[in-house]
Amino acid sequence: MEENRDKTLNFIENAASQGAKLIVLPELCVSGYVFNSRDEALKSSELIPNGESLKAWDRICKEKGIYLIAGLAERDNEALYNTSVLIGPNGYMGKYRKLHLWFEEKFFFEPGNLSPPLFNTPFGRVAMMICYDMWFPEIPRIHSLNGADLLVIPTNWPEHPTRERVKDITDKIIVTHSCLNKVFTAACDRVGTERGTTFKGRSIITGTDGSILAGPASRDKEEIIIAECNLMDSRIKSTNNLNNVIWDRRSDIYHLT
Amino acid sequence: MEENRDKTLNFIENAASQGAKLIVLPELCVSGYVFNSRDEALKSSELIPNGESLKAWDRICKEKGIYLIAGLAERDNEALYNTSVLIGPNGYMGKYRKLHLWFEEKFFFEPGNLSPPLFNTPFGRVAMMICYDMWFPEIPRIHSLNGADLLVIPTNWPEHPTRERVKDITDKIIVTHSCLNKVFTAACDRVGTERGTTFKGRSIITGTDGSILAGPASRDKEEIIIAECNLMDSRIKSTNNLNNVIWDRRSDIYHLT
Repeated sequence: MEENRDKTLNFIENAASQGAKLIVLPELCVSGYVFNSRDEALKSSELIPNGESLKAWDRICKEKGIYLIAGLAERDNEALYNTSVLIGPNGYMGKYRKLHLWFEEKFFFEPGNLSPPLFNTPFGRVAMMICYDMWFPEIPRIHSLNGADLLVIPTNWPEHPTRERVKDITDKIIVTHSCLNKVFTAACDRVGTERGTTFKGRSIITGTDGSILAGPASRDKEEIIIAECNLMDSRIKSTNNLNNVIWDRRSDIYHLT
Repeated sequence: MEENRDKTLNFIENAASQGAKLIVLPELCVSGYVFNSRDEALKSSELIPNGESLKAWDRICKEKGIYLIAGLAERDNEALYNTSVLIGPNGYMGKYRKLHLWFEEKFFFEPGNLSPPLFNTPFGRVAMMICYDMWFPEIPRIHSLNGADLLVIPTNWPEHPTRERVKDITDKIIVTHSCLNKVFTAACDRVGTERGTTFKGRSIITGTDGSILAGPASRDKEEIIIAECNLMDSRIKSTNNLNNVIWDRRSDIYHLT
């Protein structure tokens, strides 16, 4: 865990030196993703905001005057959550607990029990999702209806056996969420293989029209991708003088439970 | 209009001769898409089920023993709707009125005033969407929650000025709907230029994992794409023994209005 934590600090330093103001790290970026037991997961978990990673990230965010979103295993008494935190130049701002747990995460984590929050930053409003959350179109929709300008998505995307048949599915899903909701997204994935699970990289930043602003990043090399975004563009939900992707909604007809 | 109607019959005949059992035609495939006046739109409209197109389609569906979904301008007293109809070997089965109107359609059509229906066929349950409806993720979600196996999407996709920057956006949106809801889709677009508006073709058929089963079709040539689908695959919403894209939904958290 110390090694991973140090690596996050090096990447943060590197990204900040390239001018990044808001930095995103992957899901569970300190603990690793593949646990063999609940005990192991427990030992990889940390308190929020008093754990070691939070303290280190808090320090570097203050020093560099940056915003950081990163995933970690959160311990809350006997419960663990797959959580991402937002830290700013003034310290810890808040957290989001993954609502939709993927596969064996169900053995180790409790499903998120908090409404997904929205955070104000000088650049705009930021919402967080984690990995499999993006399989649920309700989530980006709720965030955009609540006024999110940017969806930040720490993720650990396992390489899928159907990869050849279903090409670039994560890119397509993220582009779609961005385009249908006219929001920016920034998804940060990991690479490498952990205990037999390979992760596919392809971190991506998208614009409000569904354009790809940076990435997809490498499948197998660690790299930093950067895009300059005016998050205020996401406040324009009109497509032309007759259409607006929010006002055109037919909530009189939608009955979603 | 007679010319377009004859063309639909030729295409239906051709597709049926290739073994197609359920055939999809584009949105407004008899009237054309670009109207100069309400009067012109009115004159291009037809009654359901007693208009000329319905009669011709009814005849050919009975003769060939096929199912057909096609878009037309529906006249209902003084109101016009951008409608698609489903016709089977036993005749007219029902219709869907486009809920989300794109651009100048708002000058000519009333927004759909009926809940989107679901139809039983021997192959599985079929739901209809039209073009801009697919910009609203609620619609495929509602259909899949209601049990749709196949989303059929007659469409007239105008070529977009941002085409170079936002590549293949319609493919990506449709693949995403298919994958997140584990449903099949079949979208049929037109090609060509009408009064200055160019349509982009790229009809597509997708599978429940987001794979592309046929297409995308040509940008500028009329063509038939065909895929053999076992629509029952869409009844399997599980991804593995711990995940199911419907059961994993967090309706306790979703507050969508």
